[in-house]
Amino acid sequence: MKQGVIEHYRKYLPVTDKTPSLTLGEGDTPLVRCPKLEKELGVGELYFKLEGCNPTGSFKDRGMVMAVAKAIEDGFKAVVCASTGNTSASATAYAAASGLESIIIIPSGKIALGKLAQAIVYGAKIIQIKGNFDQALQIVFKLTEKHKVALVNSVNPYRIEGQKTAAFEIVDALGKAPDYLFIPVGNAGNITAYWKGFKEYHQLGKAASLPKMMGFQAEGAAPIVRGHAIAEPETLATAIRIGNPASWKKAEEARDESVGLIDMVSDAEIMAAYHKMASAGIFGEPASAAPLAGLIKRIKGGQDFSASQIVCVVTGNGLKDSDIAIKGAGGFSETEASLGAVEKVLGW
Amino acid sequence: MKQGVIEHYRKYLPVTDKTPSLTLGEGDTPLVRCPKLEKELGVGELYFKLEGCNPTGSFKDRGMVMAVAKAIEDGFKAVVCASTGNTSASATAYAAASGLESIIIIPSGKIALGKLAQAIVYGAKIIQIKGNFDQALQIVFKLTEKHKVALVNSVNPYRIEGQKTAAFEIVDALGKAPDYLFIPVGNAGNITAYWKGFKEYHQLGKAASLPKMMGFQAEGAAPIVRGHAIAEPETLATAIRIGNPASWKKAEEARDESVGLIDMVSDAEIMAAYHKMASAGIFGEPASAAPLAGLIKRIKGGQDFSASQIVCVVTGNGLKDSDIAIKGAGGFSETEASLGAVEKVLGW
Repeated sequence: MKQGVIEHYRKYLPVTDKTPSLTLGEGDTPLVRCPKLEKELGVGELYFKLEGCNPTGSFKDRGMVMAVAKAIEDGFKAVVCASTGNTSASATAYAAASGLESIIIIPSGKIALGKLAQAIVYGAKIIQIKGNFDQALQIVFKLTEKHKVALVNSVNPYRIEGQKTAAFEIVDALGKAPDYLFIPVGNAGNITAYWKGFKEYHQLGKAASLPKMMGFQAEGAAPIVRGHAIAEPETLATAIRIGNPASWKKAEEARDESVGLIDMVSDAEIMAAYHKMASAGIFGEPASAAPLAGLIKRIKGGQDFSASQIVCVVTGNGLKDSDIAIKGAGGFSETEASLGAVEKVLGW
Repeated sequence: MKQGVIEHYRKYLPVTDKTPSLTLGEGDTPLVRCPKLEKELGVGELYFKLEGCNPTGSFKDRGMVMAVAKAIEDGFKAVVCASTGNTSASATAYAAASGLESIIIIPSGKIALGKLAQAIVYGAKIIQIKGNFDQALQIVFKLTEKHKVALVNSVNPYRIEGQKTAAFEIVDALGKAPDYLFIPVGNAGNITAYWKGFKEYHQLGKAASLPKMMGFQAEGAAPIVRGHAIAEPETLATAIRIGNPASWKKAEEARDESVGLIDMVSDAEIMAAYHKMASAGIFGEPASAAPLAGLIKRIKGGQDFSASQIVCVVTGNGLKDSDIAIKGAGGFSETEASLGAVEKVLGW
């Protein structure tokens, strides 16, 4: 049986006998090899880690199951976070499964209900404030200082602990660490978590080598690349639209210790990669195409990966933002309901 | 490594040395126990099989990987089907991964692009005809008779073969067959496939017993329950809006051989179950709530499941139809960006 990340990687996680065995079936996601793009791009071995196959459709579930399980262990009856996307969906799902209340604080302005659809259906208490995201986060901090409510935003250290299990799974699947891990960088918790996971498995002797960590930000939201916070980050890859990453320093450590890099890709490069992935049967949300966009950028820049083993992390399910998939698709011109008419359209 | 259903269940499938090891990471989906609803409903053991965690978000991937792999083995360069939903998404994804062309024939009328978003992004050639679904299907049949293009609608026998692996996984996870399998019934291929899988494992000695098969149709699309085809089936559970199921007879066999039943539930019962599942952290498309709606109906009717082990099949990801999740949700009333204001909203 699929046990979830807490049971499966119990001995590598900060759990005790009192930590509940909470799971919604997170983790153990597919690592899919893609011969079509290997050939097209001239890459030795190219794999996609499909984190969109997690129960709420993103990698956040790995960390959230830990954060909520520890909240239960510590006697909390409610969790709170500031988020309009994958984090709120995951937090609310695990809270719902456990009978905890979940509170989501969102900034003012036009929030697409679609981004919050999961939090709504899982039953979050959603409060919109007349302020920006930072103010929402500040209220979350104050709430958790004053009341018995667990903070599950990314400053919660259990989030990184749970997320590192994705690195374990890659090594368990390949029998080694890949040569390169390509990953989107937004709040930078995930690159931090993967690097922690790879290092721990290396120290345990479970992986002889370490991968080079290749992080990619969106051009309009690239504080680490530019060396300063971005006041108003902009990119259509909303999951990485972050101007001041919580794990900024840790991400730089991952880059430097692994002799990797953190670079940026344009929205146009992201969308080209998004469609290239889909043309090989892999459907991620736009942010999840940043790694492939980065790989293509490196190849165009002359880097040779023809003997390399590469894993690209697809952080979230394409169904999270399917509107963007049909942008520009238009309708369909009708044809007569006859074999001949259809043959004509097909040119057969 | 996750091998996909063809590699994992190779010896129980009609594959040869020439069948390609195609996979997008389908199968091995979570079987999640739900203590919250066990308690609320008075069920001994209640599990959800999360087929929405498949790579294109539905159970169709299990059968489609088989259908496309066999099409490749048989030398086809293109696949075709009539579908506006999960089948077209899955067919196009596996065709894309394999470098095959995919052709989707859709009926006339207003088709929501959202339902076709995956087929569009994976790169299907979509042709809309001036006719209904049956005419679309007839053209598909004629096309495949005349041209070298593989039919991957549910009459393709490999679809059932691939889908039966979900029953194998349940037995492998529980160590036995459950007492009851609750499942939505639309075109009836899935109940047919599960029953075939349970019977085969039973015959192989891998399961000592067989489950009772409990199928549920939507009231407005319940041909098997009513005993006649429905000309214009209607239900908001679009994935089971079928008036004349392809596997009608086989579904009745599964019901009768297992001493189970096929009953119907109203759209209101489906939506109540949909929200109850979500309140426990399980987000399926509306059709996927029909099994829980059926279970609740049986319990209300007096059936005792307090000592039973039950599996409900969640056939598709809730993100496939997230519009319905936010229906009636409205906007959010804003409050001041202060701790005090938020505490007031929370009643703290």
